[in-house]
Amino acid sequence: MTDAPVRQASLREHNLGLVLRQAAIWVTASGRRVVGPRHDDQSFEADAARPPSRADIAAATSLTRATVSALVDDLIAGGLLTEVEPAPRAGAGRPAAGLVLSASGPAGLGLEINVDYLSACVVDLAGTVRHREVRHADQRPGRPDQVLAEVAGLAADARTHAERERLTLAGAALAVPGLVTPTGLVRLAPNLGWRDVDVPAGLAALDGLPVTVDNEANLAALGELHAGPVGPASFLYVSGEIGIGAGIVLHGTLFRGARGWSGELGHVAVRPDGPACRCGARGCLEQYAGQEAILRAASADGTTDLLARASAHDSVALTALATAGEALGVAAAGVVNLLDVEAVVLGGIYAPLAPWLRPAVTAEIQQRVLTASWSPVDVRPSVLGADAAVMGAAGSVVRTVRDHPARWLTRTVA
Amino acid sequence: MTDAPVRQASLREHNLGLVLRQAAIWVTASGRRVVGPRHDDQSFEADAARPPSRADIAAATSLTRATVSALVDDLIAGGLLTEVEPAPRAGAGRPAAGLVLSASGPAGLGLEINVDYLSACVVDLAGTVRHREVRHADQRPGRPDQVLAEVAGLAADARTHAERERLTLAGAALAVPGLVTPTGLVRLAPNLGWRDVDVPAGLAALDGLPVTVDNEANLAALGELHAGPVGPASFLYVSGEIGIGAGIVLHGTLFRGARGWSGELGHVAVRPDGPACRCGARGCLEQYAGQEAILRAASADGTTDLLARASAHDSVALTALATAGEALGVAAAGVVNLLDVEAVVLGGIYAPLAPWLRPAVTAEIQQRVLTASWSPVDVRPSVLGADAAVMGAAGSVVRTVRDHPARWLTRTVA
Repeated sequence: MTDAPVRQASLREHNLGLVLRQAAIWVTASGRRVVGPRHDDQSFEADAARPPSRADIAAATSLTRATVSALVDDLIAGGLLTEVEPAPRAGAGRPAAGLVLSASGPAGLGLEINVDYLSACVVDLAGTVRHREVRHADQRPGRPDQVLAEVAGLAADARTHAERERLTLAGAALAVPGLVTPTGLVRLAPNLGWRDVDVPAGLAALDGLPVTVDNEANLAALGELHAGPVGPASFLYVSGEIGIGAGIVLHGTLFRGARGWSGELGHVAVRPDGPACRCGARGCLEQYAGQEAILRAASADGTTDLLARASAHDSVALTALATAGEALGVAAAGVVNLLDVEAVVLGGIYAPLAPWLRPAVTAEIQQRVLTASWSPVDVRPSVLGADAAVMGAAGSVVRTVRDHPARWLTRTVA
Repeated sequence: MTDAPVRQASLREHNLGLVLRQAAIWVTASGRRVVGPRHDDQSFEADAARPPSRADIAAATSLTRATVSALVDDLIAGGLLTEVEPAPRAGAGRPAAGLVLSASGPAGLGLEINVDYLSACVVDLAGTVRHREVRHADQRPGRPDQVLAEVAGLAADARTHAERERLTLAGAALAVPGLVTPTGLVRLAPNLGWRDVDVPAGLAALDGLPVTVDNEANLAALGELHAGPVGPASFLYVSGEIGIGAGIVLHGTLFRGARGWSGELGHVAVRPDGPACRCGARGCLEQYAGQEAILRAASADGTTDLLARASAHDSVALTALATAGEALGVAAAGVVNLLDVEAVVLGGIYAPLAPWLRPAVTAEIQQRVLTASWSPVDVRPSVLGADAAVMGAAGSVVRTVRDHPARWLTRTVA
């Protein structure tokens, strides 16, 4: 029982968040994605539901109109809210101006290092993707400092682009396919060949911009949790890349494990005496369903080629995908047996391959999960597709601003 | 932000809990088990640390001495606390009386149905086991109502014994090796052959005594969490019986899954095309490391026989245990890769077999867990041994009384 008095400052912080949340709720309620590639910034007026007015917000929050107006003024001045003219309505009285999340205020920079590409994106407060860049290239030959220098280049491009659009980057989040400590040290990224790489030190070139580093599957799972239609509260997000990672969302919260190393689905054994894995063990899921294993089995020279062949009913490609789906299903069924999650979300390259992977994954779950007959498990492609990690990264920055608007207002004043 | 006033009644409830907790903390601080078989009720005075006095409790809780005294009086009258005479100390002033959890107040009744035995135990408020009964017999031939009638008989014996010791049963908890709904419906217990059995209805004979029903591995994991030395906050409790269950404790809380069906480790695939399992799938862990699989491979006619043979270095028994340990290790390594738990606790028959299982389990974790080299995983036998589930069940009743003493006091007054 704490009996600390509610200070005026924290009350104001709380109420700023409350007011901003009303505008954010409208973004979701109107069917828009909070963070998603198909979110179209030009369509505010086209939506059936109108954005909330000051009066709507007062009614929804039980704050006085005077308090709401003062807070809204501060949020507008700080670039977090924008007032939009109401659409004229026949026969009604003069409609009030609507409040929407600003399209020219703070924005989040998402960055991603993966084995065969680097990417960046800028997402504004309303969840609209305002900039996107991907550089395809095998990152394994490069030293970590070279890779980080290229990431810094992507970040600089993104910042230039953001400033041209009158956006201010509030921070950056970097997704890495490996085990990351809370301070941003990459302990191990087996498929990149990285060990104990101090990422924030290598990204000092982003001068001044706060950077957080996280596992790519964790960021992708967070992106998925906050994107699109309100999904299940507990799901396994599987990130299929050259490595396979997983983000575990339990009761609406990302589960990171006792020491932050959860989600290493790629190294769960499918056949304990199977082929040797880069990690030192045998028969890991990655050896059956990792990108390189699938491409090799399908004799395809890339995922585009694989998709084309599968679409053309090429039997070698179909067999390779069925085998990968079966292995993925065995591992996913184990997770469902253990954690009783409601859904398995296929992300990374698995998202476009879902039409071919899903039947086998579903069949294995149906056969192997004790409760499957009365507690069905939804197997579905990621809403954000291959961009989930970099979108989730940018979204995590945006959510921090939205959850703590007072911090942002103080920062811009300072 | 709720601004509900703290009512006097709830404040009293809160403070009663606070005071009782001081006596409970002493039980733990003095090296006693909260719920454990080796907790010796006769040794209070022998402990080096003395139990807390009213003054100690006032100091620890910041409540006034007058408030503490009134609450202590209520807790003594309600049979929750007992005043003990202080040990005479040379040279000191007259020492104050100590307060200990009552050994003649409310108690918890633990019940367990397993495939080859039924058991019951009574645990008092201080965690001392006051009664214990096990009936070994294969439960598979019996109908659920026959099994439940026998459980009711065990419960009646336990109640008679408890009353003779001036204990009042506060409630009962029943451990079942299957999937249980919050209302006590056993949806499926594959090794018992039960499906949709309404346990509370079948136990109506326990007239008046509130009964909760839970999965045996969950109750065992809770027992383990609260027993003995303060262990890791995140662990996998593996219950080896004819079936294999698991209780997953994450950050000090039992994780039940989205719909309550977590922990089905026995049906995680070790070899996807392995032998057929009772559940309908193939290659489940139970087929390699379940009690019947081990005994068959060891040509042993029971766990006592198996233990004797293993102790005598019988090579068939040792090979059988190494094979089981390897399968268990493959499955456990998968869990650690996914959930990053700090420990794997071997329970049920695995507890006495731990000397032979542990090397293989540890080796598989060492080889297969990506983070094992810098985040070691402790593999250890259950502190409570084969009794963990029934002890955990009784302990869950006791903890409810300890956490909500006001409810108990109201109940005894009524």
